[in-house]
Amino acid sequence: MVSHKKPFQLEVCFSPAMLKCYTYNHATVVVIDIFRATSAITCALSHGVSEIIPVATVEEARQYKEMGYLVAAERDGIVLDFADFGNSPFNFMRDDMAGKTIVYSTTNGTQAVQLAMNASQVIIASFINHLSIVNYLSQHHQDVLILCSGWKDRFSFEDSVYAGALCQSLLETGNFITECDSAVAAMELWNLAKNDLMNFKEKFAHRHRLKKLGLDDVIEYCLTFDSADVIPVVKGNSIVKL
Amino acid sequence: MVSHKKPFQLEVCFSPAMLKCYTYNHATVVVIDIFRATSAITCALSHGVSEIIPVATVEEARQYKEMGYLVAAERDGIVLDFADFGNSPFNFMRDDMAGKTIVYSTTNGTQAVQLAMNASQVIIASFINHLSIVNYLSQHHQDVLILCSGWKDRFSFEDSVYAGALCQSLLETGNFITECDSAVAAMELWNLAKNDLMNFKEKFAHRHRLKKLGLDDVIEYCLTFDSADVIPVVKGNSIVKL
Repeated sequence: MVSHKKPFQLEVCFSPAMLKCYTYNHATVVVIDIFRATSAITCALSHGVSEIIPVATVEEARQYKEMGYLVAAERDGIVLDFADFGNSPFNFMRDDMAGKTIVYSTTNGTQAVQLAMNASQVIIASFINHLSIVNYLSQHHQDVLILCSGWKDRFSFEDSVYAGALCQSLLETGNFITECDSAVAAMELWNLAKNDLMNFKEKFAHRHRLKKLGLDDVIEYCLTFDSADVIPVVKGNSIVKL
Repeated sequence: MVSHKKPFQLEVCFSPAMLKCYTYNHATVVVIDIFRATSAITCALSHGVSEIIPVATVEEARQYKEMGYLVAAERDGIVLDFADFGNSPFNFMRDDMAGKTIVYSTTNGTQAVQLAMNASQVIIASFINHLSIVNYLSQHHQDVLILCSGWKDRFSFEDSVYAGALCQSLLETGNFITECDSAVAAMELWNLAKNDLMNFKEKFAHRHRLKKLGLDDVIEYCLTFDSADVIPVVKGNSIVKL
Protein backbone atom coordinates (compact mmCIF):
# COMPACT_ATOMS: atom_id res chain seq x y z
CA MET A 1 0.00 0.00 0.00
CA VAL A 2 1.39 3.38 -0.96
CA SER A 3 1.48 5.99 1.79
CA HIS A 4 -0.14 9.30 0.91
CA LYS A 5 0.82 11.12 4.08
CA LYS A 6 1.88 14.70 3.55
CA PRO A 7 5.56 15.09 4.34
CA PHE A 8 6.60 17.63 6.97
CA GLN A 9 8.87 20.60 6.35
CA LEU A 10 12.46 20.39 7.51
CA GLU A 11 14.52 23.57 7.97
CA VAL A 12 17.88 24.51 9.45
CA CYS A 13 18.77 27.77 11.20
CA PHE A 14 22.54 28.29 11.44
CA SER A 15 22.50 30.76 14.33
CA PRO A 16 20.19 32.02 17.09
CA ALA A 17 20.63 35.47 15.48
CA MET A 18 18.61 34.22 12.48
CA LEU A 19 15.86 32.46 14.45
CA LYS A 20 13.56 35.48 14.07
CA CYS A 21 13.42 34.78 10.30
CA TYR A 22 11.69 31.43 10.86
CA THR A 23 8.12 30.50 11.72
CA TYR A 24 8.26 27.68 14.23
CA ASN A 25 5.44 28.05 16.73
CA HIS A 26 3.79 24.90 15.32
CA ALA A 27 7.09 23.07 14.80
CA THR A 28 9.46 21.02 16.90
CA VAL A 29 12.72 22.93 17.35
CA VAL A 30 15.79 20.71 17.73
CA VAL A 31 18.64 22.54 19.47
CA ILE A 32 22.23 21.52 18.67
CA ASP A 33 25.40 22.54 20.50
CA ILE A 34 27.85 19.72 19.80
CA PHE A 35 30.80 21.24 21.72
CA ARG A 36 29.42 20.81 24.34
CA ALA A 37 26.04 21.77 25.80
CA THR A 38 23.62 19.45 24.00
CA SER A 39 26.09 16.55 24.20
CA ALA A 40 26.50 17.19 27.94
CA ILE A 41 22.77 17.60 28.64
CA THR A 42 22.05 14.35 26.81
CA CYS A 43 24.84 12.58 28.68
CA ALA A 44 23.57 13.87 32.03
CA LEU A 45 19.99 12.70 31.46
CA SER A 46 21.19 9.33 30.23
CA HIS A 47 23.21 8.93 33.47
CA GLY A 48 20.22 9.49 35.69
CA VAL A 49 20.06 13.27 36.18
CA SER A 50 16.33 13.88 36.47
CA GLU A 51 16.06 17.53 35.50
CA ILE A 52 18.20 20.26 33.97
CA ILE A 53 17.20 23.89 34.38
CA PRO A 54 18.75 25.91 31.54
CA VAL A 55 19.41 29.54 32.39
CA ALA A 56 20.73 32.15 29.97
CA THR A 57 22.61 34.51 32.26
CA VAL A 58 25.47 34.11 34.74
CA GLU A 59 23.42 36.09 37.26
CA GLU A 60 20.54 33.58 37.18
CA ALA A 61 23.00 30.71 37.58
CA ARG A 62 24.52 32.41 40.64
CA GLN A 63 21.08 32.97 42.19
CA TYR A 64 20.25 29.27 41.81
CA LYS A 65 23.59 28.40 43.43
CA GLU A 66 22.71 30.62 46.40
CA MET A 67 19.41 28.75 46.68
CA GLY A 68 21.39 25.50 47.07
CA TYR A 69 21.14 24.04 43.57
CA LEU A 70 23.93 22.13 41.83
CA VAL A 71 25.11 24.46 39.07
CA ALA A 72 27.00 23.74 35.84
CA ALA A 73 28.11 27.02 34.28
CA GLU A 74 30.81 28.14 31.87
CA ARG A 75 31.63 31.01 29.58
CA ASP A 76 34.06 30.60 26.65
CA GLY A 77 34.85 27.10 27.90
CA ILE A 78 35.91 28.20 31.40
CA VAL A 79 34.04 27.06 34.53
CA LEU A 80 32.56 29.99 36.46
CA ASP A 81 34.08 30.30 39.93
CA PHE A 82 30.86 29.70 41.85
CA ALA A 83 29.78 26.68 39.80
CA ASP A 84 29.97 22.99 40.74
CA PHE A 85 30.72 21.86 37.19
CA GLY A 86 31.68 23.19 33.78
CA ASN A 87 30.33 22.02 30.47
CA SER A 88 32.05 18.66 29.98
CA PRO A 89 29.80 15.63 29.50
CA PHE A 90 32.31 13.71 31.63
CA ASN A 91 31.11 15.66 34.70
CA PHE A 92 27.86 13.75 34.56
CA MET A 93 29.13 10.20 34.11
CA ARG A 94 28.92 9.48 37.82
CA ASP A 95 26.76 7.21 39.93
CA ASP A 96 25.83 10.00 42.34
CA MET A 97 24.07 12.00 39.62
CA ALA A 98 20.92 9.88 39.79
CA GLY A 99 17.79 11.88 40.56
CA LYS A 100 19.65 15.19 40.76
CA THR A 101 18.50 18.56 39.43
CA ILE A 102 21.21 20.62 37.74
CA VAL A 103 21.06 24.27 36.79
CA TYR A 104 22.94 24.81 33.56
CA SER A 105 24.29 27.91 31.82
CA THR A 106 26.70 27.94 28.88
CA THR A 107 28.03 30.36 26.29
CA ASN A 108 25.74 29.29 23.48
CA GLY A 109 23.61 26.19 23.95
CA THR A 110 21.42 27.18 26.87
CA GLN A 111 20.80 30.59 25.27
CA ALA A 112 19.51 28.85 22.16
CA VAL A 113 17.17 26.67 24.24
CA GLN A 114 15.78 29.76 25.98
CA LEU A 115 15.28 31.55 22.67
CA ALA A 116 13.31 28.68 21.13
CA MET A 117 10.75 28.46 23.96
CA ASN A 118 7.88 29.62 21.68
CA ALA A 119 8.10 26.45 19.64
CA SER A 120 5.45 23.76 19.86
CA GLN A 121 8.18 21.61 21.42
CA VAL A 122 11.93 21.96 22.00
CA ILE A 123 14.19 18.91 22.06
CA ILE A 124 17.95 18.53 22.40
CA ALA A 125 20.08 16.63 19.90
CA SER A 126 23.70 15.64 19.38
CA PHE A 127 25.67 12.85 17.79
CA ILE A 128 25.36 10.85 21.01
CA ASN A 129 21.55 10.51 20.81
CA HIS A 130 21.15 10.74 17.03
CA LEU A 131 19.18 7.55 16.41
CA SER A 132 16.73 8.23 19.25
CA ILE A 133 16.06 11.71 17.86
CA VAL A 134 15.56 10.44 14.30
CA ASN A 135 13.18 7.69 15.43
CA TYR A 136 11.20 10.12 17.55
CA LEU A 137 10.91 12.92 14.98
CA SER A 138 9.99 10.56 12.16
CA GLN A 139 6.90 9.54 14.17
CA HIS A 140 6.06 12.91 15.70
CA HIS A 141 4.10 14.40 12.75
CA GLN A 142 5.33 17.96 12.98
CA ASP A 143 7.49 20.30 10.95
CA VAL A 144 11.05 20.38 12.27
CA LEU A 145 13.39 23.35 12.63
CA ILE A 146 16.96 22.45 13.54
CA LEU A 147 18.57 25.30 15.48
CA CYS A 148 22.37 25.40 15.63
CA SER A 149 23.48 27.18 18.79
CA GLY A 150 26.49 28.62 16.99
CA TRP A 151 29.35 30.51 18.61
CA LYS A 152 28.24 33.84 20.08
CA ASP A 153 25.53 34.10 17.43
CA ARG A 154 27.91 33.19 14.62
CA PHE A 155 27.93 30.10 12.41
CA SER A 156 29.48 27.05 14.08
CA PHE A 157 30.98 24.41 11.81
CA GLU A 158 30.42 21.38 14.08
CA ASP A 159 26.79 22.29 14.84
CA SER A 160 26.11 22.77 11.12
CA VAL A 161 27.78 19.49 10.15
CA TYR A 162 25.62 17.64 12.67
CA ALA A 163 22.55 19.52 11.42
CA GLY A 164 23.40 18.04 8.01
CA ALA A 165 23.65 14.53 9.45
CA LEU A 166 20.26 14.94 11.13
CA CYS A 167 18.65 16.36 7.96
CA GLN A 168 19.95 13.49 5.90
CA SER A 169 18.63 10.85 8.33
CA LEU A 170 15.24 12.60 8.58
CA LEU A 171 14.86 12.93 4.80
CA GLU A 172 15.72 9.24 4.44
CA THR A 173 12.66 8.33 6.56
CA GLY A 174 10.50 9.72 3.73
CA ASN A 175 8.45 11.75 6.21
CA PHE A 176 10.13 15.09 5.51
CA ILE A 177 10.91 17.40 2.63
CA THR A 178 13.08 20.50 2.56
CA GLU A 179 13.27 23.61 0.41
CA CYS A 180 15.74 25.27 2.76
CA ASP A 181 19.17 26.40 1.48
CA SER A 182 20.71 25.93 4.94
CA ALA A 183 19.47 22.35 5.14
CA VAL A 184 20.87 21.50 1.69
CA ALA A 185 24.21 23.20 2.45
CA ALA A 186 24.43 21.45 5.84
CA MET A 187 23.93 18.08 4.14
CA GLU A 188 26.70 18.92 1.65
CA LEU A 189 29.01 19.67 4.59
CA TRP A 190 27.98 16.46 6.37
CA ASN A 191 28.70 14.44 3.24
CA LEU A 192 32.21 15.92 3.14
CA ALA A 193 32.77 15.16 6.81
CA LYS A 194 31.13 11.80 7.37
CA ASN A 195 33.74 9.40 6.05
CA ASP A 196 36.52 10.83 8.19
CA LEU A 197 34.97 12.96 10.91
CA MET A 198 37.99 12.69 13.23
CA ASN A 199 40.15 14.25 10.54
CA PHE A 200 37.51 16.73 9.30
CA LYS A 201 37.09 18.10 12.86
CA GLU A 202 40.48 19.84 12.47
CA LYS A 203 38.62 22.44 10.38
CA PHE A 204 36.38 23.43 13.32
CA ALA A 205 37.52 26.63 15.05
CA HIS A 206 35.95 25.63 18.38
CA ARG A 207 37.88 22.35 18.41
CA HIS A 208 41.02 24.51 18.58
CA ARG A 209 39.56 26.79 21.27
CA LEU A 210 38.88 23.71 23.43
CA LYS A 211 42.36 22.35 22.73
CA LYS A 212 43.99 25.57 23.92
CA LEU A 213 41.98 25.32 27.14
CA GLY A 214 42.90 21.64 27.62
CA LEU A 215 39.23 20.75 27.20
CA ASP A 216 39.50 18.68 24.05
CA ASP A 217 39.29 15.33 25.86
CA VAL A 218 35.54 15.34 25.08
CA ILE A 219 35.83 15.88 21.33
CA GLU A 220 35.78 12.26 20.27
CA TYR A 221 32.92 11.43 22.65
CA CYS A 222 30.89 14.38 21.29
CA LEU A 223 31.46 13.25 17.69
CA THR A 224 30.51 9.59 18.25
CA PHE A 225 27.05 8.35 17.34
CA ASP A 226 24.53 6.82 19.71
CA SER A 227 26.13 6.28 23.10
CA ALA A 228 22.85 7.50 24.67
CA ASP A 229 19.22 6.65 23.96
CA VAL A 230 17.41 9.53 25.66
CA ILE A 231 15.42 12.38 24.13
CA PRO A 232 15.87 15.51 26.23
CA VAL A 233 12.78 17.71 25.96
CA VAL A 234 11.96 21.13 27.37
CA LYS A 235 9.03 20.97 29.81
CA GLY A 236 8.13 24.24 31.50
CA ASN A 237 11.45 25.69 32.66
CA SER A 238 13.30 22.38 32.67
CA ILE A 239 14.86 19.85 30.36
CA VAL A 240 13.81 16.30 31.21
CA LYS A 241 13.75 12.89 29.55
CA LEU A 242 10.80 12.42 27.23
CA MET B 1 63.62 38.17 0.16
CA VAL B 2 60.97 36.80 2.48
CA SER B 3 58.00 39.04 3.14
CA HIS B 4 57.26 39.67 6.82
CA LYS B 5 54.05 41.59 6.28
CA LYS B 6 51.33 40.73 8.78
CA PRO B 7 48.45 39.03 7.01
CA PHE B 8 44.98 40.54 7.31
CA GLN B 9 41.98 38.77 8.81
CA LEU B 10 39.36 37.37 6.48
CA GLU B 11 35.86 36.60 7.76
CA VAL B 12 32.51 35.65 6.27
CA CYS B 13 29.08 36.61 7.60
CA PHE B 14 26.32 34.42 6.15
CA SER B 15 23.43 36.81 6.79
CA PRO B 16 22.77 40.48 7.62
CA ALA B 17 21.04 39.16 10.78
CA MET B 18 24.48 38.07 12.07
CA LEU B 19 26.37 41.24 11.13
CA LYS B 20 26.04 42.59 14.68
CA CYS B 21 28.32 39.75 15.87
CA TYR B 22 31.27 41.07 13.86
CA THR B 23 33.66 43.96 14.42
CA TYR B 24 34.19 45.65 11.07
CA ASN B 25 34.54 49.38 11.55
CA HIS B 26 38.21 49.17 10.51
CA ALA B 27 37.59 46.57 7.80
CA THR B 28 36.46 46.55 4.21
CA VAL B 29 33.03 44.93 3.96
CA VAL B 30 32.38 43.13 0.68
CA VAL B 31 28.65 42.76 -0.02
CA ILE B 32 27.46 39.79 -2.11
CA ASP B 33 24.01 39.24 -3.60
CA ILE B 34 24.62 36.98 -6.58
CA PHE B 35 20.94 36.66 -7.62
CA ARG B 36 20.86 39.53 -8.48
CA ALA B 37 21.65 42.86 -6.83
CA THR B 38 25.44 42.90 -6.70
CA SER B 39 25.68 41.31 -10.15
CA ALA B 40 23.27 43.96 -11.51
CA ILE B 41 24.99 46.90 -9.78
CA THR B 42 28.36 45.76 -11.13
CA CYS B 43 26.90 45.31 -14.61
CA ALA B 44 25.30 48.77 -14.51
CA LEU B 45 28.52 50.57 -13.51
CA SER B 46 30.50 48.65 -16.12
CA HIS B 47 28.01 49.80 -18.76
CA GLY B 48 28.47 53.48 -17.95
CA VAL B 49 25.92 54.17 -15.19
CA SER B 50 27.71 56.79 -13.12
CA GLU B 51 25.99 56.44 -9.76
CA ILE B 52 23.64 54.05 -7.97
CA ILE B 53 21.75 55.20 -4.89
CA PRO B 54 20.83 52.16 -2.80
CA VAL B 55 17.70 52.59 -0.70
CA ALA B 56 16.37 50.05 1.77
CA THR B 57 12.62 50.75 1.69
CA VAL B 58 9.98 50.82 -1.04
CA GLU B 59 8.81 54.17 0.31
CA GLU B 60 12.23 55.80 -0.24
CA ALA B 61 12.36 54.36 -3.74
CA ARG B 62 8.92 55.84 -4.49
CA GLN B 63 9.95 59.26 -3.17
CA TYR B 64 13.00 59.28 -5.45
CA LYS B 65 10.74 58.34 -8.39
CA GLU B 66 8.49 61.31 -7.59
CA MET B 67 11.59 63.54 -7.64
CA GLY B 68 12.26 62.39 -11.21
CA TYR B 69 14.97 59.77 -10.68
CA LEU B 70 15.26 56.54 -12.65
CA VAL B 71 14.33 53.80 -10.20
CA ALA B 72 15.14 50.09 -10.18
CA ALA B 73 13.08 48.36 -7.50
CA GLU B 74 11.82 44.86 -6.81
CA ARG B 75 10.54 42.74 -3.98
CA ASP B 76 10.68 38.92 -4.12
CA GLY B 77 11.84 39.18 -7.73
CA ILE B 78 8.86 41.25 -8.91
CA VAL B 79 9.29 44.77 -10.32
CA LEU B 80 7.44 47.37 -8.24
CA ASP B 81 4.70 49.09 -10.24
CA PHE B 82 6.18 52.59 -10.04
CA ALA B 83 9.72 51.52 -10.98
CA ASP B 84 11.51 51.90 -14.32
CA PHE B 85 13.42 48.62 -13.96
CA GLY B 86 13.56 45.49 -11.87
CA ASN B 87 16.67 43.73 -10.68
CA SER B 88 17.97 42.08 -13.85
CA PRO B 89 21.52 42.96 -14.92
CA PHE B 90 20.19 42.89 -18.51
CA ASN B 91 18.27 46.12 -17.80
CA PHE B 92 21.55 47.99 -17.72
CA MET B 93 23.24 46.61 -20.83
CA ARG B 94 22.08 49.55 -22.92
CA ASP B 95 23.89 52.40 -24.61
CA ASP B 96 21.58 55.03 -23.09
CA MET B 97 22.67 54.17 -19.53
CA ALA B 98 25.89 56.19 -19.78
CA GLY B 99 26.17 58.88 -17.14
CA LYS B 100 22.82 58.04 -15.54
CA THR B 101 22.01 57.94 -11.83
CA ILE B 102 19.81 55.05 -10.75
CA VAL B 103 18.01 54.62 -7.45
CA TYR B 104 18.01 50.96 -6.48
CA SER B 105 16.01 48.95 -3.96
CA THR B 106 15.86 45.17 -3.76
CA THR B 107 14.71 42.46 -1.35
CA ASN B 108 18.12 41.70 0.13
CA GLY B 109 21.19 43.25 -1.48
CA THR B 110 20.54 46.94 -0.99
CA GLN B 111 19.50 46.31 2.62
CA ALA B 112 22.84 44.62 3.26
CA VAL B 113 24.71 47.60 1.74
CA GLN B 114 22.80 50.00 3.99
CA LEU B 115 23.49 47.88 7.06
CA ALA B 116 27.26 47.78 6.45
CA MET B 117 27.65 51.57 6.22
CA ASN B 118 29.74 51.74 9.45
CA ALA B 119 32.57 49.83 7.82
CA SER B 120 35.81 51.53 6.86
CA GLN B 121 34.77 50.87 3.26
CA VAL B 122 31.96 48.95 1.53
CA ILE B 123 32.49 47.38 -1.89
CA ILE B 124 30.27 45.22 -4.08
CA ALA B 125 31.33 41.83 -5.42
CA SER B 126 29.97 39.08 -7.62
CA PHE B 127 31.27 36.43 -9.98
CA ILE B 128 31.23 38.99 -12.80
CA ASN B 129 33.89 41.25 -11.21
CA HIS B 130 35.75 38.61 -9.17
CA LEU B 131 39.28 39.21 -10.44
CA SER B 132 39.05 42.99 -10.04
CA ILE B 133 37.89 42.55 -6.44
CA VAL B 134 40.65 40.05 -5.61
CA ASN B 135 43.34 42.28 -7.11
CA TYR B 136 42.03 45.31 -5.27
CA LEU B 137 41.62 43.68 -1.85
CA SER B 138 45.00 41.98 -1.99
CA GLN B 139 46.62 45.42 -2.23
CA HIS B 140 44.29 47.33 0.09
CA HIS B 141 45.90 46.39 3.43
CA GLN B 142 42.76 45.99 5.49
CA ASP B 143 40.89 43.19 7.20
CA VAL B 144 38.04 41.94 5.02
CA LEU B 145 34.54 40.89 6.07
CA ILE B 146 32.50 39.27 3.31
CA LEU B 147 28.78 39.88 3.91
CA CYS B 148 26.31 37.59 2.17
CA SER B 149 23.03 39.42 1.60
CA GLY B 150 21.09 36.20 2.11
CA TRP B 151 17.37 35.73 1.52
CA LYS B 152 15.26 37.73 3.96
CA ASP B 153 18.00 37.45 6.58
CA ARG B 154 18.41 33.72 6.02
CA PHE B 155 21.38 31.83 4.61
CA SER B 156 21.61 31.97 0.81
CA PHE B 157 23.41 29.13 -0.91
CA GLU B 158 24.64 31.05 -3.98
CA ASP B 159 25.93 33.99 -1.94
CA SER B 160 27.78 31.60 0.37
CA VAL B 161 29.29 29.60 -2.48
CA TYR B 162 30.62 32.81 -4.03
CA ALA B 163 31.90 33.91 -0.59
CA GLY B 164 33.90 30.68 -0.62
CA ALA B 165 35.31 31.42 -4.09
CA LEU B 166 36.36 34.88 -2.93
CA CYS B 167 37.92 33.56 0.31
CA GLN B 168 39.90 30.99 -1.60
CA SER B 169 41.26 33.54 -4.07
CA LEU B 170 42.12 35.99 -1.27
CA LEU B 171 43.91 33.34 0.82
CA GLU B 172 45.88 32.32 -2.27
CA THR B 173 47.36 35.85 -2.47
CA GLY B 174 49.13 35.11 0.84
CA ASN B 175 47.93 38.44 2.26
CA PHE B 176 45.11 37.02 4.37
CA ILE B 177 44.49 34.43 7.04
CA THR B 178 41.22 33.19 8.45
CA GLU B 179 40.10 31.58 11.71
CA CYS B 180 36.45 31.90 10.80
CA ASP B 181 34.21 28.80 10.63
CA SER B 182 31.96 30.46 8.04
CA ALA B 183 34.91 31.19 5.76
CA VAL B 184 36.18 27.61 5.98
CA ALA B 185 32.69 26.16 5.41
CA ALA B 186 32.10 28.53 2.47
CA MET B 187 35.34 27.34 0.85
CA GLU B 188 34.25 23.72 1.32
CA LEU B 189 31.00 24.54 -0.47
CA TRP B 190 32.84 26.39 -3.24
CA ASN B 191 35.14 23.41 -3.75
CA LEU B 192 32.09 21.19 -4.20
CA ALA B 193 30.52 23.60 -6.66
CA LYS B 194 33.41 24.89 -8.72
CA ASN B 195 33.93 22.09 -11.20
CA ASP B 196 30.32 22.05 -12.32
CA LEU B 197 28.67 25.24 -11.18
CA MET B 198 25.90 25.08 -13.79
CA ASN B 199 24.81 21.72 -12.39
CA PHE B 200 25.44 22.59 -8.74
CA LYS B 201 23.18 25.67 -9.05
CA GLU B 202 20.15 23.33 -9.12
CA LYS B 203 20.63 23.05 -5.34
CA PHE B 204 20.00 26.78 -4.85
CA ALA B 205 16.45 27.58 -3.67
CA HIS B 206 16.52 31.08 -5.18
CA ARG B 207 17.40 29.68 -8.59
CA HIS B 208 14.01 27.94 -8.47
CA ARG B 209 12.21 31.07 -7.21
CA LEU B 210 13.59 32.99 -10.22
CA LYS B 211 12.64 30.16 -12.58
CA LYS B 212 9.02 30.20 -11.39
CA LEU B 213 8.93 33.94 -12.07
CA GLY B 214 10.48 33.50 -15.53
CA LEU B 215 13.50 35.49 -14.34
CA ASP B 216 16.11 32.77 -14.67
CA ASP B 217 17.54 34.11 -17.94
CA VAL B 218 20.20 35.90 -15.87
CA ILE B 219 21.42 32.87 -13.92
CA GLU B 220 24.26 31.87 -16.22
CA TYR B 221 25.44 35.47 -16.57
CA CYS B 222 25.46 35.90 -12.77
CA LEU B 223 27.49 32.70 -12.31
CA THR B 224 30.14 33.52 -14.93
CA PHE B 225 33.49 34.97 -13.88
CA ASP B 226 34.93 38.30 -14.94
CA SER B 227 32.72 39.85 -17.59
CA ALA B 228 33.22 43.21 -15.84
CA ASP B 229 36.32 44.93 -14.49
CA VAL B 230 34.81 47.55 -12.19
CA ILE B 231 34.94 47.82 -8.39
CA PRO B 232 31.69 49.31 -7.12
CA VAL B 233 32.34 51.21 -3.88
CA VAL B 234 29.99 53.01 -1.50
CA LYS B 235 30.75 56.74 -1.35
CA GLY B 236 28.45 58.79 0.84
CA ASN B 237 24.95 57.65 -0.10
CA SER B 238 25.91 56.30 -3.51
CA ILE B 239 27.64 53.39 -5.15
CA VAL B 240 30.16 54.50 -7.76
CA LYS B 241 33.14 53.07 -9.62
CA LEU B 242 36.33 53.13 -7.59
